[in-house]
Amino acid sequence: MAPTKQLVLEAIKAVDSGRIASKFNAISRIGSTESGLNRLAYSESNKEALDLVTSWMREADLEVGIDPICNVFGTTRGAGKGKSVLTGSHIDSVIDGGRFDGTIGVVAGLECMRVISELGLRTKSQIELVVFAGEESSRFAFGTIGSKAIVGDLRIEQLYRLKDHDGLVLADVVRRFGGDPDRIADCRRKASEIGSMIELHIEQGPVLERIGKSIGVVNDIVSIDRLVLKIQGETIHSGGGLASMRRDALAGAAEVVLFVERMNKRYPNIRATAGNIQASPGTLNAVPGSATVGLDLRVLGDRRKYLAFLRLGVRRICQKRKLTFEFANVFHQDAQRMSRRIIGVISKIAREMKLDPYRISSFGGHDSLVIAKVAPVGMIFVPSIRGISHNWNESTDMKHVRLGTQLLLASLLDLAGLS
Amino acid sequence: MAPTKQLVLEAIKAVDSGRIASKFNAISRIGSTESGLNRLAYSESNKEALDLVTSWMREADLEVGIDPICNVFGTTRGAGKGKSVLTGSHIDSVIDGGRFDGTIGVVAGLECMRVISELGLRTKSQIELVVFAGEESSRFAFGTIGSKAIVGDLRIEQLYRLKDHDGLVLADVVRRFGGDPDRIADCRRKASEIGSMIELHIEQGPVLERIGKSIGVVNDIVSIDRLVLKIQGETIHSGGGLASMRRDALAGAAEVVLFVERMNKRYPNIRATAGNIQASPGTLNAVPGSATVGLDLRVLGDRRKYLAFLRLGVRRICQKRKLTFEFANVFHQDAQRMSRRIIGVISKIAREMKLDPYRISSFGGHDSLVIAKVAPVGMIFVPSIRGISHNWNESTDMKHVRLGTQLLLASLLDLAGLS
Repeated sequence: MAPTKQLVLEAIKAVDSGRIASKFNAISRIGSTESGLNRLAYSESNKEALDLVTSWMREADLEVGIDPICNVFGTTRGAGKGKSVLTGSHIDSVIDGGRFDGTIGVVAGLECMRVISELGLRTKSQIELVVFAGEESSRFAFGTIGSKAIVGDLRIEQLYRLKDHDGLVLADVVRRFGGDPDRIADCRRKASEIGSMIELHIEQGPVLERIGKSIGVVNDIVSIDRLVLKIQGETIHSGGGLASMRRDALAGAAEVVLFVERMNKRYPNIRATAGNIQASPGTLNAVPGSATVGLDLRVLGDRRKYLAFLRLGVRRICQKRKLTFEFANVFHQDAQRMSRRIIGVISKIAREMKLDPYRISSFGGHDSLVIAKVAPVGMIFVPSIRGISHNWNESTDMKHVRLGTQLLLASLLDLAGLS
Repeated sequence: MAPTKQLVLEAIKAVDSGRIASKFNAISRIGSTESGLNRLAYSESNKEALDLVTSWMREADLEVGIDPICNVFGTTRGAGKGKSVLTGSHIDSVIDGGRFDGTIGVVAGLECMRVISELGLRTKSQIELVVFAGEESSRFAFGTIGSKAIVGDLRIEQLYRLKDHDGLVLADVVRRFGGDPDRIADCRRKASEIGSMIELHIEQGPVLERIGKSIGVVNDIVSIDRLVLKIQGETIHSGGGLASMRRDALAGAAEVVLFVERMNKRYPNIRATAGNIQASPGTLNAVPGSATVGLDLRVLGDRRKYLAFLRLGVRRICQKRKLTFEFANVFHQDAQRMSRRIIGVISKIAREMKLDPYRISSFGGHDSLVIAKVAPVGMIFVPSIRGISHNWNESTDMKHVRLGTQLLLASLLDLAGLS
């Protein structure tokens, strides 16, 4: 066996699932509540978790850096000075989220870095573990903040415009977190330093578990559109209008919710969700004159076709009920294919490791989708138990995490090149 | 013609629709906004409108009194000292309500009192115009506060427990309005002084307009139940779960909203409304794990039958979707028949006036329903244009208001007895 291959095999064996689990358990305590994990972007608990990760980076002898938007990088020392191979994910969470989403990619990446340091492996390119800032959109209705800053998709004006539920401005929040919102343009320097990236993440869906696979190699990330539908009818007294006279905006909204559910059942290549709803005036002594529904549409394929289908369905429902409506597209993200080259590297190694990798599509957005704008990117998925995610019951068996970490490590070493 | 009949005819002729309209317009300006009338119970604008009515009572030479919960009474002078004949309604409104609901009954009553004063009519029983405090439940999720105090259905503890959206305690609010919450037991004195009562109100429904009648004589007021349904499913990632795996609480709630709508269409003797809804967590990147629906059920007849039907429908929907649910009955008011005697008096006079009165059921609750606990009560309805109520477009033609006022005046004089 070639010496390089031998070193990689040793590295794979050195991956310690006990150490992964103990770090994961330690970080999972930060922000944990009875209802779920609460580590909102740029919150106190997010800060505490980030400090812990930074201390671990130092223990693993990495060079630690932080950029103005508060992405944190831990870089191997002594490597060549070419473009970096990145790995990493995020440790911020949704409200009442799960412990694995994002975090496990950081903990797995950290284990890879520790093995590299401990075995004294030298690579041609340096390898960097990155903790992306503000991946989840729950706090500012705007996600992948850190990765967007890197690729230049975040403008200073946005930092001063976006507010959380308490009215706190993102720029102020970033500053208090230790960042420098007025210097976010400097985050872009990083973009030119990225040679490639691999992110390990839980699937957040049920496919791998159902087919009994440990490893998914992500082929593409679906497009995401978020729409706010406002329906207008007429407010009347709850005791007043006969059924035939009512122009009940909430009943119209309910029909839309069920239409969206039927779309989701009918087309396996989409995920359509009505995640939010309001009725106005919202008192029980009035038939709601207006209602708002928040919709999330993820499409593997032609998003325009499904958006048109959705709009048509809503139009039919509202016309029949003599309601008017308007759509606002509040968020859009194009689909993104992962790099053919990186998919090839991961798949080849996985097959060598007898992991029987499964090519999978991601219905969740990730920092990888953003970084793919400036560098070739790949993702490794590990199974989610029952497909649950963004929920306290989110879980992944540590045996899958170990295999995923081994695959990640070998892939990073392949991309970085042992010297 | 008997002198009494002659006097009543003269009184009817003296009803001045110009004067009614001008008073109505003056009071309608108070609390008017672009989106509707805003005179919430015990608010500044409610106070301003009440002060205006009180000044009009004095102009009409009435003896003005206010009780500890801030019901205001204007009493004719020089009558016999028996039990009073009451008329009146309320001038507080829902949020973004209409100008006629409640207010028109007070303005019509005031016109009756002015005619009685100006013509120097002496009655055996005194007649009182009452402005009931806090009829609408919009501010404290608790209505008919003033009338409940009169009949002894309001406890001091409730005044100290009920809070508005800003957290203001009802007792404090009443005190600031000029009342004395600790003395509400004294409001009950009034109950023993009420001989009978007639309330004029807009229909808040479309029936009279549809059949082309000016006058409805209310037969009964329906029961009202308000229920809060909480549905529990499972929160998962919007991109995660396949359609078949989802236990989407909002989709279940939507099906309940449409079931309630079908109930409303199917049974003409009920009004069923889903007036409020929430989804949790309410973010677009998660399938809602729980949802809450606020329901209002008004029944003419056997309320238990329809409540059971509703619960059964919800159970079926939730079982099919593997959701759990719980109902909370947050409000209940029994149906109330109006006094046969008073219906008889109003109907006889209406027929004499060639008004072709129509016996009607009220799907709205009223102070009359509460007062009926202690005295015989009747109600006169005038049409609502298109049945709209609790909405800025609420309206009633002044010609109907004039006829209603004339009928009210003649009926009050009949009940009080000309001396």
